[in-house]
Amino acid sequence: MSSNKELEKPRFAPVILAGGSGTRFWPRSRRARAKQVLALQGERTMIQQTLERLQPLASASDVWIITNHWLKDVIAEQLPEIPSSQVLSEPCPRNTAPACALAAFLLEPTAPDTVLGVFPSDQVVADAKRFAEVIGAGVRLAAAGENIVVLGIPPTRPETGYGYVEQGAEIPGEAGIPVKRVKRFREKPDPATAERFLAAGNFVWNGGIFLWSAKTLAAAVREHIPDMAAPLEAIAAAFGTPEFEAVFAEEYPKCENISVDYAILERRSAKGESRSNIYCLPADFGWTDLGSWASLHEHLGENDRDNVMDGETTGLFAIQSGGNYVYAPGKTVALLGVDGLVVVETDDALLITTRARSQDVSKLVRAIHESGREDLI
Amino acid sequence: MSSNKELEKPRFAPVILAGGSGTRFWPRSRRARAKQVLALQGERTMIQQTLERLQPLASASDVWIITNHWLKDVIAEQLPEIPSSQVLSEPCPRNTAPACALAAFLLEPTAPDTVLGVFPSDQVVADAKRFAEVIGAGVRLAAAGENIVVLGIPPTRPETGYGYVEQGAEIPGEAGIPVKRVKRFREKPDPATAERFLAAGNFVWNGGIFLWSAKTLAAAVREHIPDMAAPLEAIAAAFGTPEFEAVFAEEYPKCENISVDYAILERRSAKGESRSNIYCLPADFGWTDLGSWASLHEHLGENDRDNVMDGETTGLFAIQSGGNYVYAPGKTVALLGVDGLVVVETDDALLITTRARSQDVSKLVRAIHESGREDLI
Repeated sequence: MSSNKELEKPRFAPVILAGGSGTRFWPRSRRARAKQVLALQGERTMIQQTLERLQPLASASDVWIITNHWLKDVIAEQLPEIPSSQVLSEPCPRNTAPACALAAFLLEPTAPDTVLGVFPSDQVVADAKRFAEVIGAGVRLAAAGENIVVLGIPPTRPETGYGYVEQGAEIPGEAGIPVKRVKRFREKPDPATAERFLAAGNFVWNGGIFLWSAKTLAAAVREHIPDMAAPLEAIAAAFGTPEFEAVFAEEYPKCENISVDYAILERRSAKGESRSNIYCLPADFGWTDLGSWASLHEHLGENDRDNVMDGETTGLFAIQSGGNYVYAPGKTVALLGVDGLVVVETDDALLITTRARSQDVSKLVRAIHESGREDLI
Repeated sequence: MSSNKELEKPRFAPVILAGGSGTRFWPRSRRARAKQVLALQGERTMIQQTLERLQPLASASDVWIITNHWLKDVIAEQLPEIPSSQVLSEPCPRNTAPACALAAFLLEPTAPDTVLGVFPSDQVVADAKRFAEVIGAGVRLAAAGENIVVLGIPPTRPETGYGYVEQGAEIPGEAGIPVKRVKRFREKPDPATAERFLAAGNFVWNGGIFLWSAKTLAAAVREHIPDMAAPLEAIAAAFGTPEFEAVFAEEYPKCENISVDYAILERRSAKGESRSNIYCLPADFGWTDLGSWASLHEHLGENDRDNVMDGETTGLFAIQSGGNYVYAPGKTVALLGVDGLVVVETDDALLITTRARSQDVSKLVRAIHESGREDLI
């Protein structure tokens, strides 16, 4: 039985998307040191943790990384087990649809049944064992026919910063892993709509993890975003040749700058839940998206009033102060009468803001960029 | 005429009081690095600036410094021109009366007519030329008879943190330097009283600068705080002998822990303005007392909404932020949506508070001390 299973096991190629611009966690993150390559929580970097979680499911030699030229070298250094030819650097930023589609066209000619899994590289997963179980089941489901599998995160609040997946009927699946048909994909909602989604009970957050076979995705690209097919096929054909970089640089910018959710999944879901073959599995493995200093405070603190000291500070003295996040490596921090602040120091910069404003740090980075202080970008 | 004046010129011995505990400007100031020995504004330290201001009036060999054992070495290093035997370290902290009285008893036996001037070492003076003019006139006034001269700072607000001097009738003085008799010394007032003082027009702040001859002060000690005379005379008698340190350590703690204002000036002023021989000269030389990070913000900023970057920061980017004080040597500071904060970083510590709370920094220092973290004190 177990040997049979082994033989049946579908080939699985994770595609890790790592195209950050390093603005949200400035001044720790920089263009060449985006959050994916930082150890924001734990000892290993986020992309190292991403690979580590996938290793029960896939060999490192089957992993692809799509990043940018700022991060390529540091990623190759942090993940030496991945073949360097499979660490691709986008010639220009192009959202998720071209990146995912490129992976499909690269594998389709030689391994059309390989299941591609798209994984962001900046997520935190608390329960790696459950992650492997759910993704494993998702890979098997995606390997069967023309199925597309998405992961849905159980929502805990009426979040307006994520897209949502509206789930339909449950279908039979593996033990302990409920499978639901997908009715529709919904873009980031306004607050009232988000409240309605949360109350309805059949909406989950779209965490950007998708599974599908190379041939299924390639077919979906040709159907839903046909203009993208020719340039990506040209790039795939040049892979492994001396012309690859030149073709990549020439053809990739022709692709539309669009997300895979919008370009393929929403369009396909319009066929109706029983015909689209899109299925949702529960991402019930302690998922967290680290999108700002405020979310890092939430992740590291036990409650909202905690003063979170990060970066191996050497002590904390707090008087009438709560809910602050401070990153000050090697220093003792003293707080007096301050609440909800974010203070982050690096060798060359000191950021002072509030948790409430920390999602606007990218505005500061833009101002720094416009001033010509590229040393800080 | 000028040679006559030269001959008549009274000998002047400044006594600089430098007994800080280094709590108000923590974490920059420490017990062994109190604000007196820091360059909080300008390139030279506050005590170096204090001596510099006095040099048109007195030779460095006539200057005395009364400090504590934490600061003695660094002061001797910063002011090498002062004879080391004249840098005295109090065996225990004892407010200003014993320190001033000790100087009087030291000089009385050999130079009773020398005018002693008491100067705090943590004040900022904008107009050094005017300072020298006013103090020079004060020295001449103090040299005549049994006069006591105090300096009164023109008040700019109903400050409750300073003592006040109530002035009486004006008497003839040197050109351009009005002299007023002193009616009474007033302790730090409550807000309503401070408002009344300001409105009355004849109240000035007591900035802690006093001038009197050694014999006048010694006589005043014997009259108003007679219990202090014996121990201080014993210490003075031992000065220059091998027993000095031992006698100092034995006798000094016997002195009452009291300010010279309260112990001598208030008591003497009770004789009435025409009999007390206490005179007030205007400290109209741009006096500032740096008592907290908030006062440093006020001193260095042009207005209340200025973001003051101190310590040679390498840049400032501010979005919707104002009235902040940041000391972050060598760093670029980025502010986003924050107001009225005080952030100070040193090699080992990071303070985060508000201007409104910065006078309570000593509470933090007490908590740090009580925790046993003497490395930060």
